Amino acid sequence: MSTHFAVEWEGFKPGRWSNTSVNVRDFIKKNYTPYDGDESFLSPPSETTRKLWDEVLDLFEEERAKGGVLDMDTKIISTITSHPAGYIDKDLEKIVGLQTDKPLKRSLQPFGGIRMAVNACKQNGYEVDPEVIDLFTKYRKTHNQGVFDAYTPEMKLARHAGIITGLPDAYGRGRIIGDYRRVALYGIDLLKKDKQEQIDTSLVRMTSKNIRLREELAEQMRALDDLAKLGEIYGFDIRKPAANAREAVQWLYFGYLAAVKEQNGAAMSLGRTSTFLDIYIQRDLDKGILTEEQAQELIDHFIMKLRMVKFARTPEYNALFSGDPTWVTESIGGVTIDGEHMVTKNSFRYLHTLENLGPAPEPNMTVLWSQKLPQAFKRYCARISIETSSIQYENDDMMRATHGDDYAIACCVSSMRIGKEMQFFGARANLAKCLLYAINGGVDEKSKEQVGPKYRPITSEYLDFGEVMERYDDMMEWLASLYVNTLNIIHFMHDKYCYEKIQMALHDRDVKRYFATGIAGLSVVADSLSAIKYAKVKCIRDEDGIVTDYEVEGDYPKYGNNDDRVDQLAVDLVRSFMNKVRKHHTYRDGVPTMSILTITSNVVYGKKTGSTPDGRKIGVPLAPGANPMHGRDTHGAAASLSSVAKLPFRHAQDGISNTFSIIPDALGKDDKVFMGDIDIESIAKSVEANIDV
Amino acid sequence: MSTHFAVEWEGFKPGRWSNTSVNVRDFIKKNYTPYDGDESFLSPPSETTRKLWDEVLDLFEEERAKGGVLDMDTKIISTITSHPAGYIDKDLEKIVGLQTDKPLKRSLQPFGGIRMAVNACKQNGYEVDPEVIDLFTKYRKTHNQGVFDAYTPEMKLARHAGIITGLPDAYGRGRIIGDYRRVALYGIDLLKKDKQEQIDTSLVRMTSKNIRLREELAEQMRALDDLAKLGEIYGFDIRKPAANAREAVQWLYFGYLAAVKEQNGAAMSLGRTSTFLDIYIQRDLDKGILTEEQAQELIDHFIMKLRMVKFARTPEYNALFSGDPTWVTESIGGVTIDGEHMVTKNSFRYLHTLENLGPAPEPNMTVLWSQKLPQAFKRYCARISIETSSIQYENDDMMRATHGDDYAIACCVSSMRIGKEMQFFGARANLAKCLLYAINGGVDEKSKEQVGPKYRPITSEYLDFGEVMERYDDMMEWLASLYVNTLNIIHFMHDKYCYEKIQMALHDRDVKRYFATGIAGLSVVADSLSAIKYAKVKCIRDEDGIVTDYEVEGDYPKYGNNDDRVDQLAVDLVRSFMNKVRKHHTYRDGVPTMSILTITSNVVYGKKTGSTPDGRKIGVPLAPGANPMHGRDTHGAAASLSSVAKLPFRHAQDGISNTFSIIPDALGKDDKVFMGDIDIESIAKSVEANIDV
Repeated sequence: MSTHFAVEWEGFKPGRWSNTSVNVRDFIKKNYTPYDGDESFLSPPSETTRKLWDEVLDLFEEERAKGGVLDMDTKIISTITSHPAGYIDKDLEKIVGLQTDKPLKRSLQPFGGIRMAVNACKQNGYEVDPEVIDLFTKYRKTHNQGVFDAYTPEMKLARHAGIITGLPDAYGRGRIIGDYRRVALYGIDLLKKDKQEQIDTSLVRMTSKNIRLREELAEQMRALDDLAKLGEIYGFDIRKPAANAREAVQWLYFGYLAAVKEQNGAAMSLGRTSTFLDIYIQRDLDKGILTEEQAQELIDHFIMKLRMVKFARTPEYNALFSGDPTWVTESIGGVTIDGEHMVTKNSFRYLHTLENLGPAPEPNMTVLWSQKLPQAFKRYCARISIETSSIQYENDDMMRATHGDDYAIACCVSSMRIGKEMQFFGARANLAKCLLYAINGGVDEKSKEQVGPKYRPITSEYLDFGEVMERYDDMMEWLASLYVNTLNIIHFMHDKYCYEKIQMALHDRDVKRYFATGIAGLSVVADSLSAIKYAKVKCIRDEDGIVTDYEVEGDYPKYGNNDDRVDQLAVDLVRSFMNKVRKHHTYRDGVPTMSILTITSNVVYGKKTGSTPDGRKIGVPLAPGANPMHGRDTHGAAASLSSVAKLPFRHAQDGISNTFSIIPDALGKDDKVFMGDIDIESIAKSVEANIDV
Repeated sequence: MSTHFAVEWEGFKPGRWSNTSVNVRDFIKKNYTPYDGDESFLSPPSETTRKLWDEVLDLFEEERAKGGVLDMDTKIISTITSHPAGYIDKDLEKIVGLQTDKPLKRSLQPFGGIRMAVNACKQNGYEVDPEVIDLFTKYRKTHNQGVFDAYTPEMKLARHAGIITGLPDAYGRGRIIGDYRRVALYGIDLLKKDKQEQIDTSLVRMTSKNIRLREELAEQMRALDDLAKLGEIYGFDIRKPAANAREAVQWLYFGYLAAVKEQNGAAMSLGRTSTFLDIYIQRDLDKGILTEEQAQELIDHFIMKLRMVKFARTPEYNALFSGDPTWVTESIGGVTIDGEHMVTKNSFRYLHTLENLGPAPEPNMTVLWSQKLPQAFKRYCARISIETSSIQYENDDMMRATHGDDYAIACCVSSMRIGKEMQFFGARANLAKCLLYAINGGVDEKSKEQVGPKYRPITSEYLDFGEVMERYDDMMEWLASLYVNTLNIIHFMHDKYCYEKIQMALHDRDVKRYFATGIAGLSVVADSLSAIKYAKVKCIRDEDGIVTDYEVEGDYPKYGNNDDRVDQLAVDLVRSFMNKVRKHHTYRDGVPTMSILTITSNVVYGKKTGSTPDGRKIGVPLAPGANPMHGRDTHGAAASLSSVAKLPFRHAQDGISNTFSIIPDALGKDDKVFMGDIDIESIAKSVEANIDV
């Protein structure tokens, strides 16, 4: 993409980003201004911001009053260019653009599945236009239908029983982060030029793989054209690079807006935009064409828009996710691979929106935490955490080793290089239920159906550790195979029927694909195995000989107390299941990863899981993510965290989450606390501990 | 598909067909009644047939008067179940079913390409509903768009220049023959049971290939359900097997009708139905529930329907195919692999329709000719050929060796086992133009564009055989690679956006796919190379040094005179190009084949080809198929046929066609002539000579 130095770039230091290829990281590295100072420079909300935000709050109020949904589109199929311009209050908005023509009106997105779209409307009292239903039933197949065409009966059964759970087969998989910064830095014309080069240099041996890629690149080109049209709809020519801070925020937001107009993904994360945008703001501040108040206003208005991102979803979906999250995750801070922190004034401005606009779960402000972050920023984070419970922290020192210094978090813990890596989201396998299948020879302990393979059940009254482990190993082999094959179908069909055109247009061509899997029930299994090994576990069988409950006689070491006897069982389990996953063919040569991160869905999974040998009763929630079971970590916070810290990151590279509450008082009264009160009720607000042994 | 012996089968001999799996061949072998008698048993058209046919003739008249198209559907997208029942004259019709709700009203089929569908309407004075255009532009991609998304600039250029020609990238590829007999023999319920078994026994390792197959099988299942609904629309329950002759014809026709409602393919051939249906007719005759007159009436009405199959096509399409052919090819006669002929009374009845209803190019009645056919049938064929010029002959003795005794012809020469093999239709490469590219270093002799690779052009005044051959070989390597890769894209996209659901539903699961290629200009190239080798060929260059014409000094051996000096050049060319084709990856492991069969499109190809070294001038038509150039075969019919006969079938397995006219008088006045007058103007009526050395 050799090009001349665009006039809009004047004042920026040139580099590979300006004379070789699309390279936002190089642009940031060469141009950002690290900030070591404190928050005293920050501005309160402008008068305009106050007015506008009040209007938005009224809309939110109205939305709540109407039962959670203000309005729904039932006729216009959402595409990048489907709607005319929409405004909250045109005169007040510094950053414009809505998903539909009206604020909080939810768009109609049937490409993932028409039934889901219809149900989402129906359950909110709306009815999708019959012609749209006809179209997506007769002529335009959806992701959901494609998946169910290919599923085996075994897959449907496993899905229904809940041993594989939360699969993105009826909703958008999400988890892909477009590099929305590219829109601002390059403008559509240069991005198209770059994309054309990608096409021109693609393989010409027409295997199915290469044909698919060529077609996708053509789709991406059209999506870029559509994005330019979206700009036009709002009166902007985003074919050229952004020329100032306001345009930079606006262009970037158009990129993101196009993505949420096109995809109702399970997580529609933003990326790592604050330090990038700081470069534009700093240039304008230096030129004297922008004041700090105006800079904050831009960010406030931008964040406001992100808070208004909404999707049409069903009650089941909301039950699974304990709410209606959009996972607009923004990754803030971090350190370069040369060891320089990347905190800028704009890192403060982003967090400051939690003060100017008040606390909020979205966008999911995530600080990429490092020992090297400047002290003043750490203090500010701590204070805002304490005041708003609205910051997520992740371990940059660990993730940087794998992903460098231009990665971001998708959803809550999934790290990926922006524009270079993406993830096939894989939900999770319920390892607790799998243990019960091992004991009952594949018969589901709740439905009594034969879901797993007909392996020999355990027939003894008391469980023998060696026998259970052998059968569990076999059952996990079956589960891993079924799980990966199920995901292969899902991602094949998502690419085929619900391809993320604009998001992938804002990626390089040869992206690395992570094939994400996940597990639920880690601590229940560790404790169960520990109980079997160190105490005596008696089986209670029903009239058909199915074990439906367990009696634990004696005590046993419990996960979460820094006791290697049980912690090692958890470590072995993670490694073992991940290695089983690795044995299988993955779609598009996806690199298998695994997460231990249920934050809310563990409640639903628990409901679907019978009593377990650790003494947990049927229906009781599993612990979230890698957490110890509630109340069993009796040796204090340090011991609890130590147990979690033993889990091997290399076998759970998609992230390990530990939802951890600390009462501020317990840590002292002054502001030296750097991790504040974490609201366990708030979806996105868990402390994410990416920890390696 | 183990099942009980259905009541509808009473009177049939059981076998593998009835107790193991879908096996129409076994049913035929066990149950057909060979007929060695003559045509004296045949009935004239019934009164009903006369009346009905007069009505159809009136409609044809009306159609011609309206410029070739009587009516077009512009709103209802054609699917198996899209239209209510349509009739010519309900009370008279023994076999019912039309493509739309009215006779000769052409259906709207946009899945292959919306532009093609729109143009076909526009050029006949109709306008496609804007909502349909919108649907197929914004929401439902078509085969045509998919192909052009993946094409390289080189492919587009080669296509435009006409070195690769007639590609099915904007129209349905056709050439697939559903085993429509299965509908009659088994009924939909048993076919679904069989299909379910196919699904249940499919690979569960979810590679993209296996996922695609599983999805296709699900699509096929739905197509079978739709086919049952199509029966219902006309008041028949085709879920059960056909119980008598009339139902058998009707069920079979519903299968075919579903195919032409779903696909506007370049050739929608029928298969090999006459001997199959004879079994039902014979059973009814034996039972005394059917008279010969009634039997003929069923066949007459069935053939009438086949004659009425029409598609919406563009003038360009019609130009390429010199008309509006549907290639409803029916294969008649042939011999079993045990050496028994398969001629039945119904073979006569089919040909007799040419007397009862008069001559017609469709359905394309094709006799699978063998020395072993009974003498009386041969005589009858000869007489009908002489009287109607409406019979095609193909060499069963040769094709039986490759395909057994239950194959049929798709289009004009493509042989395939019914329900077990299919073909990816590949149009053809223009080898004459390729020779000119070899001489001009890849520069097109007409457009002067660099279309081929920039190899060194020939710069000498006189062409040297060795030099030309070396360069021609290189240029053919390029062409073969480009051609196969282009076809890979086409068939990938056709499967993706315009899959032949019902036709493939009437196939086994694990079909063998022929990856058909073809060549045009064989005799021109053979003669050109002969001229270069045995005479002197002088290059005439334009001001840019491009050779645009040739002067041949002296005489040279010409293909078509049984002269090995030139015939061997043709043989070498066929083998050489086919071997180059074989080097490349083919979509879905298609087995590459090649045809030499242009019957009409050679005229269009000639227009796109500059002057050639054999003395042929720019724009002059190429010879059709494997024919010698017109007028150059000066040594008589036997010598001409001998030259063609040298071409190696194993390198041109998709068929070698030789359009050959014989004036009956030249062969004597009596009825011993077995190949009659072949109307060179009639599209489908060439003598197809499948000949091996």
